[in-house]
Amino acid sequence: MLEKLKQEVLEANLQLPKHNLVTFTWGNVSGIERDLGLVVIKPSGVPYESLKFDDLVVVDLEGKVVEGSLRPSSDTPTHLELYKEFTQIGGIVHTHSPWATTWAQACRSIPPLGTTHADYFYGEIPCTRKLTEEEISRAYEAETGKVIIEKFQNDGLDSAAMPGVLVSNHAPFCWGKDPQQAVHNAVVLEEVAKMALQTYQLNLQQQPIGQYLLDKHYLRKHGVHAYYGQK
Amino acid sequence: MLEKLKQEVLEANLQLPKHNLVTFTWGNVSGIERDLGLVVIKPSGVPYESLKFDDLVVVDLEGKVVEGSLRPSSDTPTHLELYKEFTQIGGIVHTHSPWATTWAQACRSIPPLGTTHADYFYGEIPCTRKLTEEEISRAYEAETGKVIIEKFQNDGLDSAAMPGVLVSNHAPFCWGKDPQQAVHNAVVLEEVAKMALQTYQLNLQQQPIGQYLLDKHYLRKHGVHAYYGQK
Amino acid sequence: MLEKLKQEVLEANLQLPKHNLVTFTWGNVSGIERDLGLVVIKPSGVPYESLKFDDLVVVDLEGKVVEGSLRPSSDTPTHLELYKEFTQIGGIVHTHSPWATTWAQACRSIPPLGTTHADYFYGEIPCTRKLTEEEISRAYEAETGKVIIEKFQNDGLDSAAMPGVLVSNHAPFCWGKDPQQAVHNAVVLEEVAKMALQTYQLNLQQQPIGQYLLDKHYLRKHGVHAYYGQK
Amino acid sequence: MLEKLKQEVLEANLQLPKHNLVTFTWGNVSGIERDLGLVVIKPSGVPYESLKFDDLVVVDLEGKVVEGSLRPSSDTPTHLELYKEFTQIGGIVHTHSPWATTWAQACRSIPPLGTTHADYFYGEIPCTRKLTEEEISRAYEAETGKVIIEKFQNDGLDSAAMPGVLVSNHAPFCWGKDPQQAVHNAVVLEEVAKMALQTYQLNLQQQPIGQYLLDKHYLRKHGVHAYYGQK
Repeated sequence: MLEKLKQEVLEANLQLPKHNLVTFTWGNVSGIERDLGLVVIKPSGVPYESLKFDDLVVVDLEGKVVEGSLRPSSDTPTHLELYKEFTQIGGIVHTHSPWATTWAQACRSIPPLGTTHADYFYGEIPCTRKLTEEEISRAYEAETGKVIIEKFQNDGLDSAAMPGVLVSNHAPFCWGKDPQQAVHNAVVLEEVAKMALQTYQLNLQQQPIGQYLLDKHYLRKHGVHAYYGQK
Repeated sequence: MLEKLKQEVLEANLQLPKHNLVTFTWGNVSGIERDLGLVVIKPSGVPYESLKFDDLVVVDLEGKVVEGSLRPSSDTPTHLELYKEFTQIGGIVHTHSPWATTWAQACRSIPPLGTTHADYFYGEIPCTRKLTEEEISRAYEAETGKVIIEKFQNDGLDSAAMPGVLVSNHAPFCWGKDPQQAVHNAVVLEEVAKMALQTYQLNLQQQPIGQYLLDKHYLRKHGVHAYYGQK
Repeated sequence: MLEKLKQEVLEANLQLPKHNLVTFTWGNVSGIERDLGLVVIKPSGVPYESLKFDDLVVVDLEGKVVEGSLRPSSDTPTHLELYKEFTQIGGIVHTHSPWATTWAQACRSIPPLGTTHADYFYGEIPCTRKLTEEEISRAYEAETGKVIIEKFQNDGLDSAAMPGVLVSNHAPFCWGKDPQQAVHNAVVLEEVAKMALQTYQLNLQQQPIGQYLLDKHYLRKHGVHAYYGQK
Repeated sequence: MLEKLKQEVLEANLQLPKHNLVTFTWGNVSGIERDLGLVVIKPSGVPYESLKFDDLVVVDLEGKVVEGSLRPSSDTPTHLELYKEFTQIGGIVHTHSPWATTWAQACRSIPPLGTTHADYFYGEIPCTRKLTEEEISRAYEAETGKVIIEKFQNDGLDSAAMPGVLVSNHAPFCWGKDPQQAVHNAVVLEEVAKMALQTYQLNLQQQPIGQYLLDKHYLRKHGVHAYYGQK
């Protein structure tokens, strides 16, 4: 069942330690089969060194385990909220990668300070508001997804053009058209977060780049007339 | 004698360079066999690359060498004080890991600024007061243990919920139910210390996370109703 | 065709990940055969792990592809502008290496703060002005080359003595007598950028080194009477 | 000739890249045979990857090449000045290791902020004054040695208890009883420099540790009654 997607999710999970995005088990990748409404996700607390194909868990969009003998990631409800709202995405990754997590802990969005940022994130990478005590005690992980969605709705953000978010006091989530691209975006976010913090160390008053430079870089990679890469 | 514990202590020591927590011989791990009142600890000044099973030293709780031809770590008296006071712990690790040591050198406790912290340390990671001249000249390493215990007693801290400490002007100690878990906590402390420093670089006025978020994350991993990881 | 230059360009490109200068495909190296007026350059968006000799693209100085089945780097027009203006250089490298990019994002030139800098860059490493909206929309990559040249002309800089530049809001370009030396200079720039930022963290008012120390170090490596290295 | 010392110097040089203290050829280690008044040193500008036993150069204390077909390191006159003044030392290392070089570029001595520092350096690690234009133009490398010696004489420092120095606007030199120990001290200096800078990021007003803690740590490793390590 879902052999191809499972393989993709497994490989994407194994990319996390390779790209130095995780310590121990602090991360998880999932992928979705839209036609069946099923999500493949990493099991909770299983070390990456021993993670195997058969450890992966299949859940439906309500979180019911459909296949697999292990518990799914405790962050599964967050993934499910995002899949239900962002209907074009195919993969999600959550990590506590240190530079992005630093911005999340500071409860700050990351302004676009250079073209590296603009190549992937079409504007400021948003940071959510903090969850309330009631939200945390009610259904913490699902509410984490909802507060992300609230931020995207309030700011009129498009999940395709803004493939990542920081959750205040917590850490980043990224996504993409498939699990592999979600991890790719998580790597980029970490680089962008690092360089943005260092940029402010050189100039506390640094302003975001202009809209036309943002447009140019984002659109030459992602627009209808994109000319970066091979056809 | 103590074959199993020695093997655990050896492996835990060898984890330190693997996790980039030590330069040269700047660290040591011990484990205790509570029934016998015996502690296995790294010998002093022996490089990790050449550390062997038979190099490990067995001492009693008064510090008397019971087995082994090498001198035990010079920090042994600190370990012994902690084992005597924190009767539930089974392993202790001391390192000069750079980010945690930075906080120790700044004589500052690390406030909980995010959920990574809350997943392992149930509140601010304490920093001891400085030792007095008299304490240093009397029995420096044992007094180091005593000043840690004083801090835990004064602040009403539980060694199970707060598995680490910073010694002012010096470096961290961490512990756990066994040597392996002690090292695990030392790795986490290093990550948490790094991200906390960086968070203050983004926002000098950053406030600690709320009590309910601290509760949520700590208890979902460690409480009676924990649901993180596999059963 | 151009077998030797292609091999040099391939090897120089493969040095970029080895020296931790690139994430994913964020970089490219080119080399020029002056007699033929032909440039060999990395194809756009091809990962370094899979980059092969036959992937390299040959273009003329107007950017027309003369050989190769892949698209050349999207930054090719920048390289061509530089080759046309800096007639003594034989290789160019562009990366988003994080420390140099940090300075570019902060729109700041890097003053010479030590002899490491002086050994390779004879003065402040310049940062260009920002491109205008018109320049960006007209011919962005060619204009990027032109704004670099404008900076060198305005400041009376010599491309031999100043083998690198920061493009505001973007990232560095470096060059040298051949592709290998261009990469060498890119590695140095990254080290120099890192140490300069850290130096300002220790002393915000740090002044550049004196002219005589700059002269001494630059000239003992590069002057007529150079005595560094072997004959 | 000097087979054993050459082997030691070779191995010590090869430790530099292993400990991440050098980029390219930015470093050199030497050792001295006091009885013969001969110094073995790395040749100038030879990459570590290709450095061989027979590449090493033997010079006398006046800098005359006694054996070897390559030029000695351009920093040889600095080494010789130090060997002539610090008559107890047996090995010297110079690098541009980034954290120590950062302090040198900021023209600041490193105060003892923790026990890691105190374990190896008995007090503030000194930074020299800047060289004058005349000194630089006269005999730059020899004058670099002289300005180090001037600092030690003015401050009453003992080269045994203070096995390293920062040269303003330049980088560190370290030494020890043999080439291996010199490199060991260079590694420590780099760690200490890193943690000191980070400590000031947490507390700009951080005071040095007390004299009694400095005494305790330095003397338990180096004093007559040292009890660290094995007998």
